[in-house]
Amino acid sequence: MTERIGYIGLGIMGRPAAVNLLRAGHPLWVWARRAESMRPLIDAGASACSDPAAVARQTDILFINVSDTPDVEQVLFGDNGVIHGAGAGKVVVDMSTVSPIATREWAARLEGAGVEMLDAPVSGGEQGAVAGSLSFMVGGKTAVFERVRPLFEVMGKNIVRCGEIGAGQVTKACNQIVISQAIAAVGEAFVFARRNGVDPARVREALLGGFAASRVLEAHGKRMLEHDFAPGFKARLHCKDMRIVLETAAQLGIGVPGAALATQYVNALVGAGDGELDSSAIYRLQELAAALS
Amino acid sequence: MTERIGYIGLGIMGRPAAVNLLRAGHPLWVWARRAESMRPLIDAGASACSDPAAVARQTDILFINVSDTPDVEQVLFGDNGVIHGAGAGKVVVDMSTVSPIATREWAARLEGAGVEMLDAPVSGGEQGAVAGSLSFMVGGKTAVFERVRPLFEVMGKNIVRCGEIGAGQVTKACNQIVISQAIAAVGEAFVFARRNGVDPARVREALLGGFAASRVLEAHGKRMLEHDFAPGFKARLHCKDMRIVLETAAQLGIGVPGAALATQYVNALVGAGDGELDSSAIYRLQELAAALS
Repeated sequence: MTERIGYIGLGIMGRPAAVNLLRAGHPLWVWARRAESMRPLIDAGASACSDPAAVARQTDILFINVSDTPDVEQVLFGDNGVIHGAGAGKVVVDMSTVSPIATREWAARLEGAGVEMLDAPVSGGEQGAVAGSLSFMVGGKTAVFERVRPLFEVMGKNIVRCGEIGAGQVTKACNQIVISQAIAAVGEAFVFARRNGVDPARVREALLGGFAASRVLEAHGKRMLEHDFAPGFKARLHCKDMRIVLETAAQLGIGVPGAALATQYVNALVGAGDGELDSSAIYRLQELAAALS
Repeated sequence: MTERIGYIGLGIMGRPAAVNLLRAGHPLWVWARRAESMRPLIDAGASACSDPAAVARQTDILFINVSDTPDVEQVLFGDNGVIHGAGAGKVVVDMSTVSPIATREWAARLEGAGVEMLDAPVSGGEQGAVAGSLSFMVGGKTAVFERVRPLFEVMGKNIVRCGEIGAGQVTKACNQIVISQAIAAVGEAFVFARRNGVDPARVREALLGGFAASRVLEAHGKRMLEHDFAPGFKARLHCKDMRIVLETAAQLGIGVPGAALATQYVNALVGAGDGELDSSAIYRLQELAAALS
């Protein structure tokens, strides 16, 4: 049986992911808030729907890839939302990066209507979405995960079920907790080196040979050395993800002091008007604060 | 010409490094504050000296591997210090982890007596010292570095000249800036996961596949999952290294907020009586603070 696939949210990440599903031969129904976002998909053979409920009525497995927690909530439960078209046996897969707490609440509401849900945030950026090499961090029931897995495999490569519903969002939050601090730490080290008259390129080389080695030191460290901050992962999106981390931590009463500190750099970068740069551009602020440029 | 080698400081790191020099066929003169520390070297064929000046008189290249900045200062310039036995053409190589600022001052004083100096702090721990696989971060003149390099190659594997005198200590400080924050960040992520009911082992697995991947996530993350905090790198030494980082930053007027924050965990761990554990044991404190155990 070929599953009938829906895709809601056709932005930078959603559009190329949906194209990959279509190319793999899956019949596809789509909806996006801005009609022009649907155009490339329709040209490629997808069917446009009038609203999320219509997508839900047409399809068995429905992907959502929008910006933030309230956007997903609106798509699911707003006027003409998914809930008004979905029914028993259907699956909602949320690829957005949003609150794990809200995710668990949505899943419970959907379950009341017989609808299954997976949370499946990704990393890998636009490049990964185009290449079909996204990393998926998935939460939800094993049987539902196995049902959707062939579709994940069309869009991505490193697909890990992290636990029950919400576990994908929790893992994505952990990812951002680690990466934000890794970027800030590499920037601090490079500033420390420069103010001591040492070439940060030598520092990076030496550190890559030991326990300080990381993909951030390698990739983001290189951007910092070259002052090349073309994204990559945009600061304004990193900022949004860190807000989710800190809000979730506050709601649950968890202290994440390092992540909170690193978030300040990302916030300041966006506030300085550089939200479209890669988030490793916080190094610029660190240099400025150290009277370097 | 076989260089005559001196080795001062025969502790956990110095002793196995000196043994490797001796085994490689280099005549070796040694001194240590505690006479019994010299015994294994003398049994293996090294010559004991009465004080650092005596070692300096006997040898061409003199390694120092002691605990902290004042210890190196005492060995170099105290009563019967190296300066009283050293002369033109000799080389002092400091393998201790100490202040880069003090290092530059010492090198200038030694140069006044015709003595060359390299700073060459290491990473790799006791295991690396025994196996001859230490990483060397070296500062000093290229010609002096090349003269000593064959001896570094007896003791280590990843040998990088990072710049002029002091650059080795600066690079080691950068190493600790990055590692301290990486450990704290992984601990934060694991606590965040656990409080969200997600297995941190799954988080580690998922994150190792993406940009959050690091040797710390791999090695220290594994220790955290298993609550196995046998060192490794002892917290009390990490604590000492972070004091050097923060003192140097303060002296030069550099802000390293992330490193300062991570240092608080290491300080607290030592204060809790766990200075002999691996510094990844800060995870215990993070768990306690999150009402986990």
